[in-house]
Amino acid sequence: MTFNWRQADAVGIATAVYQGEITASAIARDCLAQIDTRNPSLNCFTAVTADTAIAKAERVDQAISRGEFPGVLAGVPFAVKNLFDVAGLTTLAGSKINAENPPANHDATAVTRLKQAGAVLVGALNMDEYAYGFVTVNSHYGATPNPHDPTRVSGGSSGGSAASVATGLVPLTLGSDTNGSIRVPAALCGIFGLKPTYGRLSRAGAILFSSSLDHIGPFARSIRDIATAFDILQGSDERDPVCTQRPPEPCLPQLEKGIEGLRIAVAGEYFTQGATPEALDAVAKVAQALNVTATVRIPEAHRARAAAYMITATEGANLHFANLRSRPQDFDPATRDRFLAGALIPASWYIQAQRFRQWYRQRVQELFQTVDIILAPTTPCVAPRIDQDTMVIGGEEILVRPNLGLFTQPLSFIGLPVLSVPVKSSNSLPLGVQIIAAPDHEAMILRVAAVLEGKEL
Amino acid sequence: MTFNWRQADAVGIATAVYQGEITASAIARDCLAQIDTRNPSLNCFTAVTADTAIAKAERVDQAISRGEFPGVLAGVPFAVKNLFDVAGLTTLAGSKINAENPPANHDATAVTRLKQAGAVLVGALNMDEYAYGFVTVNSHYGATPNPHDPTRVSGGSSGGSAASVATGLVPLTLGSDTNGSIRVPAALCGIFGLKPTYGRLSRAGAILFSSSLDHIGPFARSIRDIATAFDILQGSDERDPVCTQRPPEPCLPQLEKGIEGLRIAVAGEYFTQGATPEALDAVAKVAQALNVTATVRIPEAHRARAAAYMITATEGANLHFANLRSRPQDFDPATRDRFLAGALIPASWYIQAQRFRQWYRQRVQELFQTVDIILAPTTPCVAPRIDQDTMVIGGEEILVRPNLGLFTQPLSFIGLPVLSVPVKSSNSLPLGVQIIAAPDHEAMILRVAAVLEGKEL
Repeated sequence: MTFNWRQADAVGIATAVYQGEITASAIARDCLAQIDTRNPSLNCFTAVTADTAIAKAERVDQAISRGEFPGVLAGVPFAVKNLFDVAGLTTLAGSKINAENPPANHDATAVTRLKQAGAVLVGALNMDEYAYGFVTVNSHYGATPNPHDPTRVSGGSSGGSAASVATGLVPLTLGSDTNGSIRVPAALCGIFGLKPTYGRLSRAGAILFSSSLDHIGPFARSIRDIATAFDILQGSDERDPVCTQRPPEPCLPQLEKGIEGLRIAVAGEYFTQGATPEALDAVAKVAQALNVTATVRIPEAHRARAAAYMITATEGANLHFANLRSRPQDFDPATRDRFLAGALIPASWYIQAQRFRQWYRQRVQELFQTVDIILAPTTPCVAPRIDQDTMVIGGEEILVRPNLGLFTQPLSFIGLPVLSVPVKSSNSLPLGVQIIAAPDHEAMILRVAAVLEGKEL
Repeated sequence: MTFNWRQADAVGIATAVYQGEITASAIARDCLAQIDTRNPSLNCFTAVTADTAIAKAERVDQAISRGEFPGVLAGVPFAVKNLFDVAGLTTLAGSKINAENPPANHDATAVTRLKQAGAVLVGALNMDEYAYGFVTVNSHYGATPNPHDPTRVSGGSSGGSAASVATGLVPLTLGSDTNGSIRVPAALCGIFGLKPTYGRLSRAGAILFSSSLDHIGPFARSIRDIATAFDILQGSDERDPVCTQRPPEPCLPQLEKGIEGLRIAVAGEYFTQGATPEALDAVAKVAQALNVTATVRIPEAHRARAAAYMITATEGANLHFANLRSRPQDFDPATRDRFLAGALIPASWYIQAQRFRQWYRQRVQELFQTVDIILAPTTPCVAPRIDQDTMVIGGEEILVRPNLGLFTQPLSFIGLPVLSVPVKSSNSLPLGVQIIAAPDHEAMILRVAAVLEGKEL
């Protein structure tokens, strides 16, 4: 192979395939071989779709040999968190219970759209059970270790999706984000992860966790890959009533626009508390690279996080109620106890959380009249060790796992689009910084990220 | 007075006023005098707005003397359930706690619209505390006895609104309906009560009980009054985000259309069980008058009722949570215990009730592809005695008060428009029959009611 696809991003791979530098089949075979060799230690994949991948890659090559346009992701290997339906595979959602289900009949809409763009699905990826976690330490399917230090977590719940991109197994994956499940693993694995505006990308064929909080989105190692995948995934879907009729607005052509005139500010108060110095340093680096000195206060973020927790636990508990009653022993202990607690929360608290949410959404909407982009840490710390229970922040010992979403939860709570961009921390482990905009302004976020991509962070 | 306004309906009164047969001022004075004399025993009014009523009536008379059109309800006395804001009055919502509030600054939108049409507001009407009841037996403001038998309840929670029309104190009132609070008292008092489609009439300035279930609507003694009031109240309102942009569709001009071609059916199964023979006989009378023999099955109505109960109790408890904690002794004991129970319901049950609601709404929507109008009893029995706790139906002794909404709850649960039309029962106490249509088909309902109005029922 003259073209080293493992070092390339998705757009680079598709270009090489289209220009005949390498065949899609050669990439698919090499990708599958790599997964065979490396996945036993990386534990990213829970299923590999070798046969259909080879067949698809051959169809891409045939299309090219016939002179047809093979799609903007021609021959690009990709994989999806195992809560997306893939025809012929049982959709696990990280659960032992769901492993008893028959194989899915149809691909999830997002999977279909990437395939239609020429991408080659190679498998399904590990996650926290039912997406309820920030670590991807799964009692049924094992932990997905961090690619930068295998004693540490990859973040979650889309840990397999982030780690497989960070390790170079595939250049592009899909995950889902309810409270931070795309952004947290993207940060801890050192890649880009986009949680789009709520309702902007179809969730049809993805197993939900907490419907009013669930989003799907892409992971990649370059901004043009994120933009390309997002553009392909955009557009309403009659299979998903939440994915509404927004006219798609392609982001890729806007990446070179620059950021002149954008009002950017760093999130103050809540988003500077409870973080390690490294996490704050990462935000400072990004702010400096963008010449940003302004700060902005997102009001009542701590309540937003509490309300997000409440809604997640109660909606999740409701979804799994029958199994929680009849077979609690078949849940991952890490999720079971939180679901059971969620089943006991009084409805009045849940309703109050939903009422607060309306108030908070309006306050944050008002904020976006004075600012276009907000910067905040993605996680309060670098990836914790797999066996680590607590950490010390500001002199206080706190639990690690529930606090990984400290800064992501108040934003997904009201469906804001957020991209986590990778920053190297002082101790060489990666960290992420969230680039946040008002609903439907993904293009603006990606313009900022494109500027950052050219700098050393 | 040559014109006996007490015997006339609202449209008849307005016509007489406009044609100079009687002045608005004379009506207002007589109406207020009547309330003074009769309200101590009828206990319909909790506040009388004598001064503003006289002033308004004089303005109507002056407008007429200037040759101006005084509005389609010129000089018509009306009153509203005391949960509607009336500028200058404290909005009680049947509560002792709310009596501590300052007077309202503005009229509720519905009050404003009726006033703009020339109607004369004479006061506010008794109700169950916070609209949580089917009897209008209020520990703070007393019971509103049934006009046909003062040992019996008037129904609730809009009992003052129904009884004041049935006794002839006023020809037109407004009430609210969450689970049956317009239809039940209309039936037990023997008048018309319309619960419109959810979201069709503005609730701005009305104290809510359970937002996703609350409706407002008119009571009257004639169908043309119901149609006239509904037409005046129609139209979106920026003060009420739930009152959406439907183009108003005047009903009054459609009353003479008749019912040829309408597919009408009697609700079977659930709606024939748990009812006294008189209640079923009332439906049979209406069906016979319309030549209807078809029946239709509304699936899972019993679950719809259970879910409506759950959502009402939990949303209501959430609204009053702070007071339930700090001053439970100031609630009416009849509502307090239900609110407290609602505060203890697990969120998972509430969420399940909301999920079921979506399913049920779709099933009933499908039903309306084969039928236009459905008939069902309004209440399972005639007005119970004020001191009556239980009744025997089908050989089984059951509680009276919670069962008065047996047939109304499954319909308001999904916001269907329903009119309760009065029917005389065999023992001479009134009963009601619900005329039910698909959302936004109030005009169709009123056409059916207009046909019935001409017959002896």
